[in-house]
Amino acid sequence: MFRKILIANRGEIALRVLRAAREMGIKTVAVHSTADASAMHVRLADEAICIGPPSASDSYLNIPNIIAAAEIAQADAIHPGYGFLSENARFAEIVEEHRIAWIGPKPEHIRTMGDKVEAKRTAGALGLPLVPGSDGAVETVEHARKVAEEFGYPVLVKAAAGGGGRGMKVVENDAMLEGAFRQARAEAKAAFGHDAVYIEKYLKNPRHIEFQIFGDGKGKAIHLGERDCSLQRRHQKVLEEAPSPVLSAPERERMGMICAKAMADMHYRGAGTIEFLWENNEFYFIEMNTRLQVEHPVTEYLTGMDLVKEQINVAAGLPLSRTQDQVTLSGHAIEVRINAEDPQTFAPSPGLVSEFHAAGGPGVRIDSALYSGYRVPPTYDSLIAKLIVHDDSREQAIARLKRALEEMVVGGIKSTIPLHQRLVDEPDFRSGDYSIKWLEALLAKKG
Amino acid sequence: MFRKILIANRGEIALRVLRAAREMGIKTVAVHSTADASAMHVRLADEAICIGPPSASDSYLNIPNIIAAAEIAQADAIHPGYGFLSENARFAEIVEEHRIAWIGPKPEHIRTMGDKVEAKRTAGALGLPLVPGSDGAVETVEHARKVAEEFGYPVLVKAAAGGGGRGMKVVENDAMLEGAFRQARAEAKAAFGHDAVYIEKYLKNPRHIEFQIFGDGKGKAIHLGERDCSLQRRHQKVLEEAPSPVLSAPERERMGMICAKAMADMHYRGAGTIEFLWENNEFYFIEMNTRLQVEHPVTEYLTGMDLVKEQINVAAGLPLSRTQDQVTLSGHAIEVRINAEDPQTFAPSPGLVSEFHAAGGPGVRIDSALYSGYRVPPTYDSLIAKLIVHDDSREQAIARLKRALEEMVVGGIKSTIPLHQRLVDEPDFRSGDYSIKWLEALLAKKG
Repeated sequence: MFRKILIANRGEIALRVLRAAREMGIKTVAVHSTADASAMHVRLADEAICIGPPSASDSYLNIPNIIAAAEIAQADAIHPGYGFLSENARFAEIVEEHRIAWIGPKPEHIRTMGDKVEAKRTAGALGLPLVPGSDGAVETVEHARKVAEEFGYPVLVKAAAGGGGRGMKVVENDAMLEGAFRQARAEAKAAFGHDAVYIEKYLKNPRHIEFQIFGDGKGKAIHLGERDCSLQRRHQKVLEEAPSPVLSAPERERMGMICAKAMADMHYRGAGTIEFLWENNEFYFIEMNTRLQVEHPVTEYLTGMDLVKEQINVAAGLPLSRTQDQVTLSGHAIEVRINAEDPQTFAPSPGLVSEFHAAGGPGVRIDSALYSGYRVPPTYDSLIAKLIVHDDSREQAIARLKRALEEMVVGGIKSTIPLHQRLVDEPDFRSGDYSIKWLEALLAKKG
Repeated sequence: MFRKILIANRGEIALRVLRAAREMGIKTVAVHSTADASAMHVRLADEAICIGPPSASDSYLNIPNIIAAAEIAQADAIHPGYGFLSENARFAEIVEEHRIAWIGPKPEHIRTMGDKVEAKRTAGALGLPLVPGSDGAVETVEHARKVAEEFGYPVLVKAAAGGGGRGMKVVENDAMLEGAFRQARAEAKAAFGHDAVYIEKYLKNPRHIEFQIFGDGKGKAIHLGERDCSLQRRHQKVLEEAPSPVLSAPERERMGMICAKAMADMHYRGAGTIEFLWENNEFYFIEMNTRLQVEHPVTEYLTGMDLVKEQINVAAGLPLSRTQDQVTLSGHAIEVRINAEDPQTFAPSPGLVSEFHAAGGPGVRIDSALYSGYRVPPTYDSLIAKLIVHDDSREQAIARLKRALEEMVVGGIKSTIPLHQRLVDEPDFRSGDYSIKWLEALLAKKG
């Protein structure tokens, strides 16, 4: 097992990794920018090394400085957390070239899944369901109609050279098709110089459902069920829960096994998340994240597993701690992301935290690097705390979440606690009836 | 179900009950002394009523004021927490006479188990194992020898009229018996005026192992396994864990079923704890607590049950949420009691809490009514926080406890956190090799 892990991150995830390492008896090295000298992960680590000025590119993304810190501290492994360098294949390679263990997937898998086109091609080849699309450009209305009828309406006509929504039309039914097709081509021509368009199935109100997987890198892989992350604002997840309110046990089992088999075939190593859109009982692959997710505690509550320890063990060459049969999912868990933001305008709200009080009691977990007297720097991500709750049923978990939110205090700066308090009382949220578009519509309506 | 519960307590247990009620959608009424006006349970309750000055006898033990508060607030149930009036049978009767539901056992069972002699008689009649003792006074050395050989050495010769250790002798073997017997009689005669002595089996280094039970009051009862509370100082529990390091699954099952059957036969209602001394694989009944215990979260972690909600449900006439077969015990949990005391001298250390920071992350639960800026009053119990951890194995739970203790901050006053930090590193604790006498011996040696 490793003797000393360098944690190439900051904030709550640096603390999360530190906690796992400490419980395993492994020493930790914190790295930090000058803005983070008094951060919690720095205070609690066995050693701390400053790697640069506040700007992330000069510190948390500064590969030479991080490698130098690892060499100085004689760390034998690096955990990248999420964000920053966690999905940088080149960094993973450099780490391994320095004979330091990389607590993450194989660099080639990071690279493949980091490339949108490659990721889709690979996912398709591994048997994951993709959003159906025309095989190349569609030249005539007749061809367009044939393709649209194959997928079922609504469909999306998209400029092949497109981007930014130009040359993109949603077609609800056959009557709309011809006009939309001609208009899209004309817009494409005007915007991009050529009028090639293709057609894709359009998902009107999909949910975001992702599967947590774990591979041993040698051909064994398991899935740990799904998380429903449909509550989003500007593509940022706001609240995550598991199980998904819309998934049946057989659907979970079927899709989970498809994901696990794909990862086994790929000889994937470590933690990964396969993200899907979901509509009308069908899954559509979006992308794969080759790292730990922010929302991993939801899965930890359901499975009783420690995903960071699992990452460390797999990186050290140990087998997966459980077979698929040994994975059981129990109860319901919800995570809310508490950000240092105005809950109305979402403007960042860094500054001095005059008071931080965590919720407690049964079925409540707080992952946060905040403390009373800490100054949230303006430089980084606004996530300051994750509140995760667990109980027997979804209804009970929501009641617990509501109770815990009432206990949380973040003083001195604005936080999104009031947003979450509003969400938990929304009838659509309570009934589980929401898509990835629901939250933005709610905010637009009531904001 | 109840509409509004009055919580006749303070501190962390008042908050614990409030959390359960809130999650069930039940309103809460806090009562408080003038010393507790800014207490957390008062701040979070739906209503708060002052019931008297700081002295407990004038406030938290003031039955007329508490009943008046319940009537003013129109509470339809009272939860007594632990301590204070929780085991006062007369209070339970008065509550019920006022047509307010009593969230606790039937008054007659509180009364029976609150009387030492009655409790032992009842326990014996229900089939619980007692400390073997001579049936009345022992008059001759020959009789004493016969009794001692029946129980096995060591035995205790005790003045029938005794108390305070006078006229009490531990007899290790047959050779010591005659001298000790004569000496005990002489001391008894001198101290109490008559020389009658009796003989009991002496437990040299027993453990304290207790079983959590729950009854529906109508003849059904279940057990939720045991807790090992052998780490004590002056008969106060310091650290509790489950499962006990010394109990095998068949022993747990056997003793648990004896307890559950006894409670079923008694038609016991609600939560209760049957406490035993344990030595050489034998249990010896000490007493039964007819209330929720401080250490109940340990059992909540292992079973996934919410014992306060279970109490409320049973008091409302609902059946037990689980049958014995549905109770599963998983992993290992440890609770440490953090007191506002000097960790060396155990002198109380009330005062202003300049900083309170709770441990977080996976498998950590904090039950505490503390907050930064709170002033711990000198009037009440010194318990200020319970830190409870859970993990797959005892070894992992200890590692997690150690990690969590490092994160806890209680500033401005002294606390017993350093004591627990010392305990978790002790080889005897780590190996599970400790009796109820171990902690005091350790403190005497190193103190």
